[in-house]
Amino acid sequence: PPAWDRAARPPPSPLQPPGLPLAPCRSFSNNKIQVDLDESSGVATMKFKSPPVNSLSLEFLTEFSISLEKLENDRACRGVIITSALPKIFSSGLDITEMCGKSMEHYAEFWRAVQEMWLRIYGSNMVTVAAVNGSSPAGGCLIALSCDYRIMAENPKFSIGLNEAQLGIVAPFWFKETFVNVVGHRTAESSLQLGSLHSAPEAHRLGLVDELVPEEKLMEKAAAVMAQWLALPDHARQLTKTMMRKAVVDRLVTHREEDIKNFVTFISKESIQKSLRTYMEMLKKKKR
Amino acid sequence: PPAWDRAARPPPSPLQPPGLPLAPCRSFSNNKIQVDLDESSGVATMKFKSPPVNSLSLEFLTEFSISLEKLENDRACRGVIITSALPKIFSSGLDITEMCGKSMEHYAEFWRAVQEMWLRIYGSNMVTVAAVNGSSPAGGCLIALSCDYRIMAENPKFSIGLNEAQLGIVAPFWFKETFVNVVGHRTAESSLQLGSLHSAPEAHRLGLVDELVPEEKLMEKAAAVMAQWLALPDHARQLTKTMMRKAVVDRLVTHREEDIKNFVTFISKESIQKSLRTYMEMLKKKKR
Amino acid sequence: PPAWDRAARPPPSPLQPPGLPLAPCRSFSNNKIQVDLDESSGVATMKFKSPPVNSLSLEFLTEFSISLEKLENDRACRGVIITSALPKIFSSGLDITEMCGKSMEHYAEFWRAVQEMWLRIYGSNMVTVAAVNGSSPAGGCLIALSCDYRIMAENPKFSIGLNEAQLGIVAPFWFKETFVNVVGHRTAESSLQLGSLHSAPEAHRLGLVDELVPEEKLMEKAAAVMAQWLALPDHARQLTKTMMRKAVVDRLVTHREEDIKNFVTFISKESIQKSLRTYMEMLKKKKR
Repeated sequence: PPAWDRAARPPPSPLQPPGLPLAPCRSFSNNKIQVDLDESSGVATMKFKSPPVNSLSLEFLTEFSISLEKLENDRACRGVIITSALPKIFSSGLDITEMCGKSMEHYAEFWRAVQEMWLRIYGSNMVTVAAVNGSSPAGGCLIALSCDYRIMAENPKFSIGLNEAQLGIVAPFWFKETFVNVVGHRTAESSLQLGSLHSAPEAHRLGLVDELVPEEKLMEKAAAVMAQWLALPDHARQLTKTMMRKAVVDRLVTHREEDIKNFVTFISKESIQKSLRTYMEMLKKKKR
Repeated sequence: PPAWDRAARPPPSPLQPPGLPLAPCRSFSNNKIQVDLDESSGVATMKFKSPPVNSLSLEFLTEFSISLEKLENDRACRGVIITSALPKIFSSGLDITEMCGKSMEHYAEFWRAVQEMWLRIYGSNMVTVAAVNGSSPAGGCLIALSCDYRIMAENPKFSIGLNEAQLGIVAPFWFKETFVNVVGHRTAESSLQLGSLHSAPEAHRLGLVDELVPEEKLMEKAAAVMAQWLALPDHARQLTKTMMRKAVVDRLVTHREEDIKNFVTFISKESIQKSLRTYMEMLKKKKR
Repeated sequence: PPAWDRAARPPPSPLQPPGLPLAPCRSFSNNKIQVDLDESSGVATMKFKSPPVNSLSLEFLTEFSISLEKLENDRACRGVIITSALPKIFSSGLDITEMCGKSMEHYAEFWRAVQEMWLRIYGSNMVTVAAVNGSSPAGGCLIALSCDYRIMAENPKFSIGLNEAQLGIVAPFWFKETFVNVVGHRTAESSLQLGSLHSAPEAHRLGLVDELVPEEKLMEKAAAVMAQWLALPDHARQLTKTMMRKAVVDRLVTHREEDIKNFVTFISKESIQKSLRTYMEMLKKKKR
């Protein structure tokens, strides 16, 4: 359970370790994500720490959404930097084991959690900066795309993209619209059809990431960008963000149940299940 | 009052200075804007001349809209070049004094004038070229964005952008859609949230302006671009322009009263009024 | 009549030349377009061969749509490369003689054939690659824009663009939306208003074509790109393509009769007819 809570401040939370003063930096660590909030700057850092590849399991997604909700409701928090605690990988995207050989009910629950995560981050009132310090396929890429700004380590071995088509599956319309809003229609169309994973330099050329920096400067740069965004008054910035993103968010909110139904129908097809099993076996062989 | 009028031609206008032949170049000068129409080329030049910074007061906006309407209805006029008669500034944007400490009725009247100006220029059947010969924040940027083509003096000290967020206010949806149509969603989203003022070279890189030229060549270049656009038959060009812009124009026409109401409610909030007063005081201190 | 037909396989088509085994490469040649399907790769090549300039006459369009429909329904075919058998020209676009001095019924029939061609190619489930080996104005450009990928010979003498405005006519909304999806709103707006024909290098800079290669490498490159696209599973790619293009396709399907009516009304105006006659006379003089 989280070590702090907006509702508990002030007075100092009874859940805080006894004997400690109200620290300028509060942390809580669940199983999958480490969260640190620097109260002096108003900036939280979320570090994915779910080995081996930060895959977005139901448990991960739930923890992610709850953490984002907490930060959203915490007046001390104005911005979030999202990064990975693992080397070479930001997040490998949706956990395929959650989509394979499970019940319809499980698929529905899982997809609702994916939606929830995206709604939280794409619709966040906080400034969100992705510090992409490793590869970031599929759902990992979606997280980055949903932030306000994307900085990536300039390592050409790291790649990023919505590669769902390579697995024989289709990104839902809200992945697509988030992508189009970042890279435009033409790039999105070919990249989605090809399930492209773009190297960091190529991703930068396409506008998929806003900036490349040497890996060791990534967090420093993310903090500097965040400070620049936080120099603006929150209220006007938030209303502006809402104006830019509301149409896409509303489309999912309106069609949420239908979108779940589509996913469940699609993913439970035998042909798709076979595709996913083949893909998982390929991944297992690679590991050996 | 204007020195010429479409309805008065032919025969030669009784309002023309007596004794002068029907000149190839007709001019009229109001308080805030100098208009010259070269009948041989069909090109009018509008020069903002409202010191110190061509701010868009209610009087300026009204004069601008009336001048545009006159030119629109004048068969001798096919294109307009918009520029500034003042050094270093194209237009500083909406006049903050019109939005500060006034009545609700005044805010409504002012906002209707802003809408009217944009509807006239974004929906104009004439070819419109902005010759941006100085800085152009907020409403000044909107005027440039609403033209068919933007040329800017390549002076890195000149900046342009929709920086409303820096004042704690929010650009309305039609500013946003005009901006997205020019620079795309990603650039618009971050630029609007940050209230960015882009230097001329950066504005060129982002596509916010189409071309940079040395300041002394600006009007020459604007005339050359205009000649290129006027080489096309008017009718097909106008229908094409309407096809490209109608959706955004219609959205404002349909929601015009609602948009005024939103503006009045927003701007008359005490928190916003305070923001604007602080901003004006900062500007005053800067001047000293 | 075509020399092969999906319905006839297997068993081997009675229409095939007797004595020949079921060849890995099947061809059929009508008057205007040569089609070759390589069954081993699943790739068909369509070569326009209608001298002097592959103009899109009613007959050409009909043959084009029928050929596309055949390939679409042929399980052996997964992708199509579209190119020209004539030197220096890909296609000169809609045949002006079909729009000049004919009956209202003829205009309606012709326009329906233009719509049909676009619906077939923009909505195709196959991978479509344009190998643009010559100039490609107006309707020729539309064909290229409607493919998944555009490769152009890097000859600066070859040009491409939607230059309808130069003829005094207006591209319909679905030309416009296809164009905006490729080059974005700003470029589409000025290019359509000016009726611009962009040289190959400029077209590449604008994103109107994805790649330039030396003319002698064009087909080789097209085959390589096709192989890359065909490496993906068809089903996911097709669903993704539909997701990206459905909105525009549906808009024409819904407004198809209205769009025909608009075209017929517009094109049969005496002022437009005069424009087209002038343009044709200019073309004739050029030829001499």
